[in-house]
Amino acid sequence: MIKIPGKSDILRASEIIQPYIHRTPVLTSETFNKLIGAELFFKCENFQKAGAFKSRGAVYVVMSLSDAEAKKGVATHSSGNHAQALARAASIRNIPAFIVMPSNSPQVKIDAVKQYSGHITFCKPTLKDREETLQKVIDNTKAFEVHPYDNFSIIAGQATAAKELLEDVNNLDLILCPVGGGGLLSGTALTTHYLSEKTEVIACEPSGADDALRSFKTGKIIPSVNPETIADGLLTSLGKRNFPIIQQYVKDIVTVSESSIVAAMRLLFERMKIVVEPSAAVPFAALLENKVAAKTKRIGIILSGGNIDLKQLPF
Amino acid sequence: MIKIPGKSDILRASEIIQPYIHRTPVLTSETFNKLIGAELFFKCENFQKAGAFKSRGAVYVVMSLSDAEAKKGVATHSSGNHAQALARAASIRNIPAFIVMPSNSPQVKIDAVKQYSGHITFCKPTLKDREETLQKVIDNTKAFEVHPYDNFSIIAGQATAAKELLEDVNNLDLILCPVGGGGLLSGTALTTHYLSEKTEVIACEPSGADDALRSFKTGKIIPSVNPETIADGLLTSLGKRNFPIIQQYVKDIVTVSESSIVAAMRLLFERMKIVVEPSAAVPFAALLENKVAAKTKRIGIILSGGNIDLKQLPF
Repeated sequence: MIKIPGKSDILRASEIIQPYIHRTPVLTSETFNKLIGAELFFKCENFQKAGAFKSRGAVYVVMSLSDAEAKKGVATHSSGNHAQALARAASIRNIPAFIVMPSNSPQVKIDAVKQYSGHITFCKPTLKDREETLQKVIDNTKAFEVHPYDNFSIIAGQATAAKELLEDVNNLDLILCPVGGGGLLSGTALTTHYLSEKTEVIACEPSGADDALRSFKTGKIIPSVNPETIADGLLTSLGKRNFPIIQQYVKDIVTVSESSIVAAMRLLFERMKIVVEPSAAVPFAALLENKVAAKTKRIGIILSGGNIDLKQLPF
Repeated sequence: MIKIPGKSDILRASEIIQPYIHRTPVLTSETFNKLIGAELFFKCENFQKAGAFKSRGAVYVVMSLSDAEAKKGVATHSSGNHAQALARAASIRNIPAFIVMPSNSPQVKIDAVKQYSGHITFCKPTLKDREETLQKVIDNTKAFEVHPYDNFSIIAGQATAAKELLEDVNNLDLILCPVGGGGLLSGTALTTHYLSEKTEVIACEPSGADDALRSFKTGKIIPSVNPETIADGLLTSLGKRNFPIIQQYVKDIVTVSESSIVAAMRLLFERMKIVVEPSAAVPFAALLENKVAAKTKRIGIILSGGNIDLKQLPF
């Protein structure tokens, strides 16, 4: 896809990926509604295949390749959920996935990629070495590069989570979505613009990794430098394809503290009985911190993923 | 209700409680299906109001009371999920709930009952003192006693979980259900008999609390004496109203080890991304232990609850 996905592109993506992903449930909690004074609808992408919304974009890209392209496999560098999602998507089409991972990646993430038969090449944990190593892998294999977010087909795929949410819950005033590289956010903002124009989209970001907010305010992409947050899925800088979409269709970006991310996670575990990773708890943290005008509104929240080491819960 | 609930009683219970409970989702996992070699459908009563299926029966009893009965409130002794569920149900109807709790109840359970405005009377942690204290409370208040499982209306209420499961998933070969006092099990067995006669119901029990198995094999209720298991929801003995239903409609009872209960819990947290209490993990433990002939079957599993202290995870 070489241009911003239109409504028909997102509907097509939704149809193509449907056999290979979960239509995740939307959960509600009376307790949370009382606590926030609003009606909250949680779209549980933590239950998604491979544990995160990333499976949507990855499956869409892999299923959209021509047979000739697919034959040589797909490649990316990632230490996170995109690595697992791409390895799984490739395994469904029975093509190789070449994943460049930093040598300090958690064992649990390495194991997950291996479980889906991904071919791992380790590199030094710097962006430069990740990119150079990936280039070498692609030179050798001619595999198709799949960027985790700066890719219009990925954006169309991630957009399908909000599409399902808008189908399942009518009259939302607001959708809250975490922002890292901006794949989920730009997809969510596009879908919402196409399907429910009166619904606003607000992005939520850790204050220790507030490059998206600063980019949004200044009108140019400000790279994420030494971000510090427990929300390990939100460390990356905005992509150049994602940013203009976010500028046009996202209403605002708010930031949250580390302590409220942990408090939000804990409430989601204890009261909603679900396992979420820190990044997924960021939008609910924004509500706990009163960073969003929420009273009496109907609010959709995208819980982005649930991949976390249970031995290292922060509460 | 003075006799075994019929099909129409269960359908009526389902209709009456519907505005006050969650229709909980059914989750699936490709990974688990591969692991067990079957198709598994998990009915997530851990997401139920007050964190367990107990809300179904409690709401049904409370909503079925006449205004005259209701006025004086409801009463029970419980240190577990029934206490919270009954307090919540009473709060919906705006009537008092008198809950007798052993003095050694976990603070988290006491807090939950208080949150729903339950009136707590503490007693010594023996069955004798629980029953005597409850009798005194009832003598003083004239409140309506709601036994946690040995009550036909409670059975009709708990039966609605399997009703929803059978509506959402067709052609189940088997439903697996944990057994403690037998409220959920007798309800599940009745619904399944009425709505899907070819579906078998198998109960799962910790081997350290195997009174249901021994009762089932000998044909008379054998009380649970000094049960030892992490599954704190399954410590009680079978009720006299529950046992005949179980004898007639349950195909078999299987037992599982403590280590496989913990392994099952851990898999449910890590792979299904859900919080379950140990009792809820018992049926999946039976599959992990190969205690049930599962291969190629379509199997429903009732995950009974999710109330657990996250500071004390056993893995």
